[in-house]
Amino acid sequence: MPEFLTLLPPDQAREKLLSHLPPPTPDSETLAVVSALGRVSAEDVIAPHPLPEFPRTTVDGYAVRARDTFGATDSLPAYLTLIGEVPMGDSPSFEIEAGQCALIHTGGMLPKGADAVVMLEYTQSAQTHEMEIFKSVADGENVIGIGEDVAKDRVVIPKGTILRPAEIGGLMALGITSLRVARLVKVGLISTGDEVVEPSQRPRPGQVRDINSYTLGALVEKSGGVAVRYGIIGDQFPALKEAAAKALSECDVVIITAGSSASTRDMTAEVIRGLGEPGVLAHGINTRPGKPTILGVCDGKAVIGLPGNPVSALVNGYLFVAPVIEKLLGALPKPKATVQAKLTVNLPSQAGREDWWAVKLIVNRQSSIVNYLAEPIFGKSNLIFTLAAGDGLLKIPPDATGLSAGETVEVMLI
Amino acid sequence: MPEFLTLLPPDQAREKLLSHLPPPTPDSETLAVVSALGRVSAEDVIAPHPLPEFPRTTVDGYAVRARDTFGATDSLPAYLTLIGEVPMGDSPSFEIEAGQCALIHTGGMLPKGADAVVMLEYTQSAQTHEMEIFKSVADGENVIGIGEDVAKDRVVIPKGTILRPAEIGGLMALGITSLRVARLVKVGLISTGDEVVEPSQRPRPGQVRDINSYTLGALVEKSGGVAVRYGIIGDQFPALKEAAAKALSECDVVIITAGSSASTRDMTAEVIRGLGEPGVLAHGINTRPGKPTILGVCDGKAVIGLPGNPVSALVNGYLFVAPVIEKLLGALPKPKATVQAKLTVNLPSQAGREDWWAVKLIVNRQSSIVNYLAEPIFGKSNLIFTLAAGDGLLKIPPDATGLSAGETVEVMLI
Repeated sequence: MPEFLTLLPPDQAREKLLSHLPPPTPDSETLAVVSALGRVSAEDVIAPHPLPEFPRTTVDGYAVRARDTFGATDSLPAYLTLIGEVPMGDSPSFEIEAGQCALIHTGGMLPKGADAVVMLEYTQSAQTHEMEIFKSVADGENVIGIGEDVAKDRVVIPKGTILRPAEIGGLMALGITSLRVARLVKVGLISTGDEVVEPSQRPRPGQVRDINSYTLGALVEKSGGVAVRYGIIGDQFPALKEAAAKALSECDVVIITAGSSASTRDMTAEVIRGLGEPGVLAHGINTRPGKPTILGVCDGKAVIGLPGNPVSALVNGYLFVAPVIEKLLGALPKPKATVQAKLTVNLPSQAGREDWWAVKLIVNRQSSIVNYLAEPIFGKSNLIFTLAAGDGLLKIPPDATGLSAGETVEVMLI
Repeated sequence: MPEFLTLLPPDQAREKLLSHLPPPTPDSETLAVVSALGRVSAEDVIAPHPLPEFPRTTVDGYAVRARDTFGATDSLPAYLTLIGEVPMGDSPSFEIEAGQCALIHTGGMLPKGADAVVMLEYTQSAQTHEMEIFKSVADGENVIGIGEDVAKDRVVIPKGTILRPAEIGGLMALGITSLRVARLVKVGLISTGDEVVEPSQRPRPGQVRDINSYTLGALVEKSGGVAVRYGIIGDQFPALKEAAAKALSECDVVIITAGSSASTRDMTAEVIRGLGEPGVLAHGINTRPGKPTILGVCDGKAVIGLPGNPVSALVNGYLFVAPVIEKLLGALPKPKATVQAKLTVNLPSQAGREDWWAVKLIVNRQSSIVNYLAEPIFGKSNLIFTLAAGDGLLKIPPDATGLSAGETVEVMLI
């Protein structure tokens, strides 16, 4: 029988899926900050002390009382008594009084009494222990005050922050060498299909190797998850049901990639219906590739049925699996990596349907600014190497009947 | 003494640095494909067999000889004798002769004699063993031919490819479960400065914790390298020279982050000069932050001196360290992750200098398409938390005297 589905728009389907997931993130674990790159903070991190803890100069020069420099110019310099040099890594033993200055190096601690620093370039040694100052400075000029980077007790890393090099450094600056991060999301992967064999196996005529467990596994890893592979299940309902139940009990998310046949696709929906409440939330998405995608939640865990076609499975992995992992990690929304490019050809599309095309990005050398041309990769949608040849995915929104050559488009890097 | 430098434009400085590095990549290692996500292939990978190895259908329907369907319409269907069903995962035991058809499921192997598949939707059972066909199909329609995804002996993954989920899947499809990848680039990190202490230590007044070894270590890790930390060296020439020589002998790249004082900066240049030929290639880059950056190559290895200021060190890490790692990995150029956004305020800049500003990207809800506003984060350039608060870096090119509010700008995600 042909397959008739009520197709949901992908954005609406994703919202429906995410809204049925419980808010709690997987439990957290304590990790050394040096090992936490890319992980998601599971708690607000509070500054235990201000940063800096003492007023520091941002330039090489002379620590002064600003008012002593007022009116100083090249022709009418101020004259200040040089009373010493601020040692690096120590607090100065002296205090700056009216008419005095001290040599200070970038990062050095401002002596008591001083409130600004005159840059070396605007000074000259007049005679022993006397400096000519050619420029006036304002109170606080060239100085970072106590807590100017971070005040004590401020939230410096909000819960849900994906830790990048800058955050790693900020934590170290505060002496925070370990923190709680969200546990990696465990995603169970099941491939189905009588025709599918392990990649290490030599397929007989009619058989193909499992691709989906590995493309999706890599996507899961990239998105902050751990892939747990439950192998390949033949087209038998009891075996699939058993494997899915096991995966659901051991993982946070379960993905079943359907065998290619229509009967197997129906089997996946049936299994999801039996696994827990509410079961299937969307069966059929108005997108290409990916129409037969099934989104479900069973007893608080996402269970997703993806088409067997490897391109379709991976594209829909980007659309539905990655956002589920992000939600479970409690990651704050962040801008997606995209590239703007000029489309090289007309791309027709069916109104109402969201289309995703693999595109190659080509550097456009004609322009002085580096920009890109987006060249769609044509080919039947089942070909994994069309996707491998692509730099990204181009979306044709549902309300468009296509995109025109020369149009500027946004390409999601994959 | 004030510091006078001949400033090189950053693009030119980077080119100079990269052109002095020897072409060979670090030696390669064999890795299981399941563990190779994000790694760089160190050899061309050749298809050992075509993909698919047999003609497969892309739809559910009936395998036919195309010519038997020519002229078939809703009102004048073709009638074909149904001789069987193609089993999934096996080669059909029968052959399609003139006037015959067989039921076939997506991914099934086309029987001998058949050259096209009519979709289920355009068929109807007429009587036992007879099918009505309502639409003609062309030769090859709904079929992927042998080698249509990949021909035998074709290079499927060129040397230098960064392995993404699609490549991982493509390799698996061909039964390639391990491959040679470039060894991770070893980057030695040395922090200098009498005022700098380990993050685990409580700084005394005048002291600060080491940030740069950790921000840069994370950047190295993110870029395909391994960070080897050589600790903090005080402002003594012999100690720094010794540490740098050790790092150079053990690593592929050495980074020295200067203590903040001018004297220490000069020391770094002096050390690089003594480490090997040609030594310092650029001392002073016309960029902000990062003017005092030193680029050198010593006996074929990059040695980079970065400013002690943590923001400057990290921004210049993105500009100079990441490209060196990419070159050593032999990674093919790929589009950089950027986001286009509308600048919220005027940003003045000095003509001739390339400026980098940390910006926050704010979703612009006024538009129907998701787009972003780029809001520069103002603050003194030494503040690590201004960078942590930023989503990316905005470049003001050297030929601009600034950017205007409302202008569309490209933000490099960090």
